[in-house]
Amino acid sequence: MDGKKLAQEVKAELKQRVEELWTSKQIVPRLAVILVGEDPASQVYVRNKRRAAEKIGIKTVDNLLPATVSEADLLDLIYEYNEDPNIHGILVQLPLPAHIDEAKVTHAILPSKDVDGFHPVNMGHLFMNMPHSLPCTPRGIMELLAAYGISPAGKEVVIVGRSNIVGRPMVALMLNADATVTVAHSKTKDLRAVTKRADILVVATGRPEMITGADIKPGAVVIDVGVNRLADGHLVGDVQRQTVEGVASYLTPVPGGVGPMTIAMLMKQTVEFAEKSGQDGY
Amino acid sequence: MDGKKLAQEVKAELKQRVEELWTSKQIVPRLAVILVGEDPASQVYVRNKRRAAEKIGIKTVDNLLPATVSEADLLDLIYEYNEDPNIHGILVQLPLPAHIDEAKVTHAILPSKDVDGFHPVNMGHLFMNMPHSLPCTPRGIMELLAAYGISPAGKEVVIVGRSNIVGRPMVALMLNADATVTVAHSKTKDLRAVTKRADILVVATGRPEMITGADIKPGAVVIDVGVNRLADGHLVGDVQRQTVEGVASYLTPVPGGVGPMTIAMLMKQTVEFAEKSGQDGY
Repeated sequence: MDGKKLAQEVKAELKQRVEELWTSKQIVPRLAVILVGEDPASQVYVRNKRRAAEKIGIKTVDNLLPATVSEADLLDLIYEYNEDPNIHGILVQLPLPAHIDEAKVTHAILPSKDVDGFHPVNMGHLFMNMPHSLPCTPRGIMELLAAYGISPAGKEVVIVGRSNIVGRPMVALMLNADATVTVAHSKTKDLRAVTKRADILVVATGRPEMITGADIKPGAVVIDVGVNRLADGHLVGDVQRQTVEGVASYLTPVPGGVGPMTIAMLMKQTVEFAEKSGQDGY
Repeated sequence: MDGKKLAQEVKAELKQRVEELWTSKQIVPRLAVILVGEDPASQVYVRNKRRAAEKIGIKTVDNLLPATVSEADLLDLIYEYNEDPNIHGILVQLPLPAHIDEAKVTHAILPSKDVDGFHPVNMGHLFMNMPHSLPCTPRGIMELLAAYGISPAGKEVVIVGRSNIVGRPMVALMLNADATVTVAHSKTKDLRAVTKRADILVVATGRPEMITGADIKPGAVVIDVGVNRLADGHLVGDVQRQTVEGVASYLTPVPGGVGPMTIAMLMKQTVEFAEKSGQDGY
């Protein structure tokens, strides 16, 4: 499954929508990006997001704060953007330094500007099947499946990993899409017995190549969310490509699978928020 | 599993906590109860809740509104209770008349006074494993299991039904308790194959006796959330007692299983809110 290609298509469509938004309402989507400290991985993520935004025509407003910034100052910045009608989305790159309460910061973002979909009220709405903003990785996976004509309805879907960013919202999306959903994790006793039941298997554990060909049902669709850098510099997923490829009907590559879709969904939500910004209640 | 007896024990413990709260802080827990219209079932539920509250020492403030009340007036009443420091919990009995938006009303209740745990921000927190207020039926099921020494950790838990009130929050609670969780529902293809995997089976479908002995694994723990009145006046659950009893290791009766625990949990949350009411942030 070619996430890179699909992400390009999504972004091309978004570029058009951004142009239409300018023509029809003179609105430019604006995304406030907040990066605290100098973590190299975070810097790469933020740079990739900023580049993707620029290509589409989304304006980013960059804030590079020192690692020593106080929680109160960070919150004040968020409150400012919450009230600014020209800012449609607010993105705080995680993780934050230890002296800042991540939950507090995530919850301070106005739910209607929460492009990452991490605010509890957005999680709650998603869980109750009234979604507003969705976590980008799970949303990207749903779009990838749809693009390949794979419907989860009535299927056995197994999700390995129960993080707040991927596994848990994935449960809600799959349930809303009528799948029979199982969540497995580090405390699952016979993981292989569980993964072998899956028609669609989503793996998001951060453990390099933990799922092998022996763990999956022939013909299963396998979505690999993991991105792990090995000691030799190689990037691998949570799925062992060599052994799974011959057994699965589909497998997302790492890199070039789920990753590009995550960024594309972040852009999509920013554009959606900007499109809604003229409407009542926003 | 005797839900009635356990609920009595829970309520006896709450009565003590209410007395201590009076002794230590001169606080009486107060629950605002709002019933709209004259639905007989709702009247019975509200009466049962009020009686339980009285026995424990929780003061209820009753509001019986006509079915013709406007949404705006109902919301105003909720806003009033939100701001009243002497009210610790607000309960709006569902369902509401068709001209009132249930979601809007549920979301108007201050999350810190949401004794039913239906507010999206509470659902989101539950889902993200930072629970504040929990839906009472799922919470009652967890306490029932705990009282019988049954830990869901590492077990295969299957939940049949995906309502916002029972099935979905049950997923979160079971996941937070380290179970391997599967959710099945009306779109599940081979339901029997799924239910037979369960070490713990929770059934909340509202379909009388749909789960039979042939659907469960020998020795499974079976939690029956259903309360269905048959044409002959008989009450039955979603589980067929006669055929399941010989196969399951535990089965909750209907009535006297999950139902009394639901009310006990409503009382528990009211007392908890009153206990927290002196603290910062409440």
